[in-house]
Amino acid sequence: MGVDQPPSLNVQMAARLKSMRSRKLSIEDLVDRILAKDQVALSQAITIIESTAKKHQHLAQEIIEKCLPYANKSIRIGITGVPGVGKSTFIESFGKLLISQGKRLAALTVDPSSSISRGSILGDKTRMEELTKEENAFIRPSASGDTLGGVARKTRETIILCEAAGFNVILVETVGVGQSETTVHSMVDFFLLLKLAGAGDELQGIKRGIMEMADSIVINKADGDNLKAAKLAKNEFARALHLYPKKESGWRPKTLMCSSLKNEGIMEIWETILEYFIIAKKNNFFERKRQDQNKFWLMQTIESQLKIEFYSNPVVKKEMEKQLQAIDENKTTPFSAAEKLLAIKTG
Amino acid sequence: MGVDQPPSLNVQMAARLKSMRSRKLSIEDLVDRILAKDQVALSQAITIIESTAKKHQHLAQEIIEKCLPYANKSIRIGITGVPGVGKSTFIESFGKLLISQGKRLAALTVDPSSSISRGSILGDKTRMEELTKEENAFIRPSASGDTLGGVARKTRETIILCEAAGFNVILVETVGVGQSETTVHSMVDFFLLLKLAGAGDELQGIKRGIMEMADSIVINKADGDNLKAAKLAKNEFARALHLYPKKESGWRPKTLMCSSLKNEGIMEIWETILEYFIIAKKNNFFERKRQDQNKFWLMQTIESQLKIEFYSNPVVKKEMEKQLQAIDENKTTPFSAAEKLLAIKTG
Repeated sequence: MGVDQPPSLNVQMAARLKSMRSRKLSIEDLVDRILAKDQVALSQAITIIESTAKKHQHLAQEIIEKCLPYANKSIRIGITGVPGVGKSTFIESFGKLLISQGKRLAALTVDPSSSISRGSILGDKTRMEELTKEENAFIRPSASGDTLGGVARKTRETIILCEAAGFNVILVETVGVGQSETTVHSMVDFFLLLKLAGAGDELQGIKRGIMEMADSIVINKADGDNLKAAKLAKNEFARALHLYPKKESGWRPKTLMCSSLKNEGIMEIWETILEYFIIAKKNNFFERKRQDQNKFWLMQTIESQLKIEFYSNPVVKKEMEKQLQAIDENKTTPFSAAEKLLAIKTG
Repeated sequence: MGVDQPPSLNVQMAARLKSMRSRKLSIEDLVDRILAKDQVALSQAITIIESTAKKHQHLAQEIIEKCLPYANKSIRIGITGVPGVGKSTFIESFGKLLISQGKRLAALTVDPSSSISRGSILGDKTRMEELTKEENAFIRPSASGDTLGGVARKTRETIILCEAAGFNVILVETVGVGQSETTVHSMVDFFLLLKLAGAGDELQGIKRGIMEMADSIVINKADGDNLKAAKLAKNEFARALHLYPKKESGWRPKTLMCSSLKNEGIMEIWETILEYFIIAKKNNFFERKRQDQNKFWLMQTIESQLKIEFYSNPVVKKEMEKQLQAIDENKTTPFSAAEKLLAIKTG
């Protein structure tokens, strides 16, 4: 390395200009191809969004900004349910119906535990064999990431690109690990909870606030010997939903049944979702919710970054150890200790 | 004012020294009197803690630091329940039992909505007529404050002073507005949930995670015509509690009944609490929980202060307006906007 002659200033400059021009061209080209519904370009752009390399992050922001004017014109549906509830079969069945109705569908996943190791259903495309063959369907497994916040950000940005690529129904599926349902709820318009008859996880759903978030509860696998139990479960959930106060959207969550395997009840679910959108658009809840979600993500990003910056400051780290020890030894209170720590940052 | 001659430097200095000495003396005197179980001194010190004046805040920290070595040696019990459940009658009955057992009891309230306007039970001392006359009882209504965090801080600091004043059982009662139960839970060792038979607010309790926090559920007003319904409710709650996984403390929450009015079942509650303490001290959960609570309050204070400082920065405020508008106009994403805002602070 040391023996190479440095290129002349002119050569350097020319190369840089060329790189700038070609980068500019390639971004514009990529965005043009996305807008032309090119799925290869869309996948490439999402890969740039998911990259952790600094240079890709700037590129990603340029791509997203160029796509933004074409985004936001979709129906965003969140789908959750415990493993085994049949999410992949449901998405396959639901997706095919939408496509037959002339819709273009993108299915994404938010799975903080990484899609590969935990076997997220969208990672396993073989379980949605027919849907993956449709040119009007785009299936992308969860971004990987250390934090749910990181995964969520990438998914939200991916939604924008998918919308720019003309997908007008976006499904965001989650396997329901930790806070992932709340995260998905805060990026979709309509939240659908898939259930099985007699699963006995009602308490869990109430406790974690998932029942409360649902715009519709769908009892899946309502076929054959299971049909009677499914009807019972449907009525029970309908009763439970009535215990909650009316939603701000003016919408009364609906309880439905379906058989994803036999393609029964799927149309009714889609009609229910459309009914919701008519109400929510009419009373402006739709628009307000999207604005609130944007503000939520703005604040969320700011606040998590403030914390990361503060706690990773080496002086803070050192003083933190001292203060924690002083607290343990009853020499100070958490409030006094906090003041001393905050003085480092602001002083 | 302008015509007054300024006093000589010597006179100024002498006055300052005198003030310093007398302040020092008065703080030491106040703390000595607290340690000597003087309730008047304790009340004065709490008033200093509750004051929003800057000079009082420094005094407060000095007092607390001097009290800290004598604090922490108590049983801290949180009590919650909906209005009408009989919290004041219960505390009266429970408190008298404790005093008859040679305990010294301090009863505090966390009520973010201010104790006066919303009629907190401890604000209304007349409902605990006998307890207020006991010299081994100290009753103090909620500190007022704009935020639950502010009220909580003052209450936590008041606990330290009460403990230094030799109170070995601290009751912290909350009326259960907003997040106040969670706040009280994070400052006590044992959390007691008072219930009425047939109140039908089970779902609410499960939903808000209050059932989950309870170390004991006590059905109050279990007397006369109400006795049968109380027994039924007791069994129902016991069943519901069994749906939750075993607590980290190794403790299985107990469901009990009592009549505060007739002084029935009160002793059993106290014995249950003592049983809990034997288990929690033996397996070190008691110590670990108090340390975790301290860390929780340290982080809580730091993080809320970081947010306040950031959002109240005038440059941030101005840019925030611009960025929010850009988001509404689809010209940027919440994540890009957050980066621009964060650059102000760190740049």
